[in-house]
Amino acid sequence: MKSEKISELTTNRLSVYLRSLNELAGKGSTTVSSRALADQFHLNSAQIRKDLAYFGEFGVRGVGYKIDTLREHLTHILGLDKEHRVCIIGAGRLGTALADYYGFREANFTVVALFDSDVKKIGKKVGNVGIIDIKNFAAVIKRDKIEVAVIAVPAANAQNALEKVMRSGIKAVMNFAPVALKATKDVKLKTIDLTTSLESLSYFLAQPVNQLKPKSGSGRNQ
Amino acid sequence: MKSEKISELTTNRLSVYLRSLNELAGKGSTTVSSRALADQFHLNSAQIRKDLAYFGEFGVRGVGYKIDTLREHLTHILGLDKEHRVCIIGAGRLGTALADYYGFREANFTVVALFDSDVKKIGKKVGNVGIIDIKNFAAVIKRDKIEVAVIAVPAANAQNALEKVMRSGIKAVMNFAPVALKATKDVKLKTIDLTTSLESLSYFLAQPVNQLKPKSGSGRNQ
Repeated sequence: MKSEKISELTTNRLSVYLRSLNELAGKGSTTVSSRALADQFHLNSAQIRKDLAYFGEFGVRGVGYKIDTLREHLTHILGLDKEHRVCIIGAGRLGTALADYYGFREANFTVVALFDSDVKKIGKKVGNVGIIDIKNFAAVIKRDKIEVAVIAVPAANAQNALEKVMRSGIKAVMNFAPVALKATKDVKLKTIDLTTSLESLSYFLAQPVNQLKPKSGSGRNQ
Repeated sequence: MKSEKISELTTNRLSVYLRSLNELAGKGSTTVSSRALADQFHLNSAQIRKDLAYFGEFGVRGVGYKIDTLREHLTHILGLDKEHRVCIIGAGRLGTALADYYGFREANFTVVALFDSDVKKIGKKVGNVGIIDIKNFAAVIKRDKIEVAVIAVPAANAQNALEKVMRSGIKAVMNFAPVALKATKDVKLKTIDLTTSLESLSYFLAQPVNQLKPKSGSGRNQ
């Protein structure tokens, strides 16, 4: 197994290749050239060849890549052949929606616990996932061998949640709170900020040049 | 009204300030200093003063900012005082979860239509939002004055969806398909790639140094 570190940009691209290959396999394809892969998924074929060459010889000249072999390799490189157990902190609307998010399952992430401090929520279930008192966080993380934490609490509580997560020994964190959190160096933190993205779209739309054209009649774009 | 363009990084920060101020207002505060704002939300106080000075004099020396006045101004600058009508393309699990996402409402985005091509879904409702045949896309966008499109279809269909969106005259797009899309210059496209983020966490966890320590006994971090 190759343990050399590759950059995050590379893993992001590998991740895109894998999903593209999964789609092709779903349609019954067995081989694909870097050019066909690039054309179909709007990727760069030279970059594909470079990225994949780095991990060994997956391509066959004149034929392209064997899709199944390449999928297996990428799945292994990305660590997706191993289940990762996930908890979600915050059983609000976002947290409960995420508990049911199919993308987790696709990536072999299994949500096994939802944490909240609201006594009215504790003990309830979202699908198969129980809502647990946040007071029991450390014990449950250990007992259930949870490796990944998803933070879905309001911005003001997010750093506290992260501190709790780090104290429990979890090293991989996905943050949905719209705030920049501070993690120690040994922790991998990914922040997904939907509200900021929405507000940047809103700002864009508020600029005069982007106003909708008049309701009807002869608009300049017809 | 100031129509000068400001950078996306600035609008992202304004967006974070606004949410921080909303939280403070929710707790009954009426004024806040840049330092207190910075400390409480892990921001940079000099940056706050610089960003806000750009939009005029909101602070009162020795007192700080009047929270309500500043919220109003930021809301206006970000275009959040105006409702934006949103459609979602793809009524799968993600699309339907997003139809109910509270963050849209918080940002004054109203989801008014879900589009899909699956005849089994067309005509059903998710909350108050009806699922409409994608064939009627252009007509519905025009009729319902929809300004924002959210793409929640599989990666292989996402560019096609974007082309359809652009042909309809929509200029603001949020893409959840895990693929880099190509938009024309007059279109603002934000891509939110959850799967890639998950897989980058998975890759991180797959590295030997990040393996969980043995089940029990005297682990080195105890």
